[in-house]
Amino acid sequence: MSLEQKSSNVVWHHGQVSRENRESMNGHKGAVLWFTGLSGSGKSTLSHAVEAKLHELGAHTYVLDGDNVRHGLCGDLGFSDVARRENIRRIGEVSKLFVEAGVVVLTAFISPFREDRAVVRGLHQEHDFIEVHCAASLAACENRDVKGLYKRARQGEIKDFTGISSPYESPEDPEVYVNTGELSLDDSVEVVLSYLKKAGVIS
Amino acid sequence: MSLEQKSSNVVWHHGQVSRENRESMNGHKGAVLWFTGLSGSGKSTLSHAVEAKLHELGAHTYVLDGDNVRHGLCGDLGFSDVARRENIRRIGEVSKLFVEAGVVVLTAFISPFREDRAVVRGLHQEHDFIEVHCAASLAACENRDVKGLYKRARQGEIKDFTGISSPYESPEDPEVYVNTGELSLDDSVEVVLSYLKKAGVIS
Repeated sequence: MSLEQKSSNVVWHHGQVSRENRESMNGHKGAVLWFTGLSGSGKSTLSHAVEAKLHELGAHTYVLDGDNVRHGLCGDLGFSDVARRENIRRIGEVSKLFVEAGVVVLTAFISPFREDRAVVRGLHQEHDFIEVHCAASLAACENRDVKGLYKRARQGEIKDFTGISSPYESPEDPEVYVNTGELSLDDSVEVVLSYLKKAGVIS
Repeated sequence: MSLEQKSSNVVWHHGQVSRENRESMNGHKGAVLWFTGLSGSGKSTLSHAVEAKLHELGAHTYVLDGDNVRHGLCGDLGFSDVARRENIRRIGEVSKLFVEAGVVVLTAFISPFREDRAVVRGLHQEHDFIEVHCAASLAACENRDVKGLYKRARQGEIKDFTGISSPYESPEDPEVYVNTGELSLDDSVEVVLSYLKKAGVIS
């Protein structure tokens, strides 16, 4: 900028668009819906169905899942404990950027460890982080086994498979508990939507 | 989901909200404005000013800059060549997620190396990546030296400082060239906005 514009530059810089400005334009709040649960518990299906409903209601949304994160932002990470932790941390940081952008961002990752989820919760302001436990039983998930992963895990072909050879630590006090093993998809969506209305994320 | 819902799950999953759906709701396209230039060339000021103008026009925007990225998503990275490259790669990947979310995302990083910027360009679809060269001369930037960084770099207190002890590789064919060393801020904003209209990002 030319020198005589210096003071106006400063004004511009402080006059940047705030999260509140964006939320006001959008007509809803930014938030992260952190779906957690076993493989096959319906995280991806439910998060996309909730997104579809929110979009229908005019909300600004985005889903972070294995499809758009694992080969991109986290493409350099393997599957060691350290790498899995870093994977969740980065997703947590990106979800925070989306929340600041005024978006309802939905994340669909197993995220089996309480400590990792607590780290992500800690990144966010209170009320911005909404943990959604997709609580289908291991038996139900293994019984469906849509991708055949449980079978392969039982045969030892997949190491450290959550629920089989690596623990899943259930949320102790999630904002939203959805019994995805029993409820229909529509009813599951309704459970999440009700919470968002009650919490004032959407009106 | 219960078993009888399986087929409807599949429908839901394929019926996810697309980028086109979001752009249609927003009334503009998603894109990344990649501001590049020397320290002090006005990247941050200009990107926030462009964002303010876009917000005024009803567009959905977000600025990625050192303030929200360096201590968060890239908080584990130092300043080695490898770390700087990884820093730019991650910002590129995150900008891609925002573009898919239908947002006009603006990034304000020196990003001095052509190869790194080419990598980011390669992540994006053609026309989504808009390189904005903030082309103030080294003399102009050093003369202003708002943060006193050039002085410290000249004294050897800061190593590998772009323009002093590390090269800045100017874009050879940027989508937008802004002579931020000469133009006023308002005129600089207008240069960027004109391009966005011409390119059909906003109408």
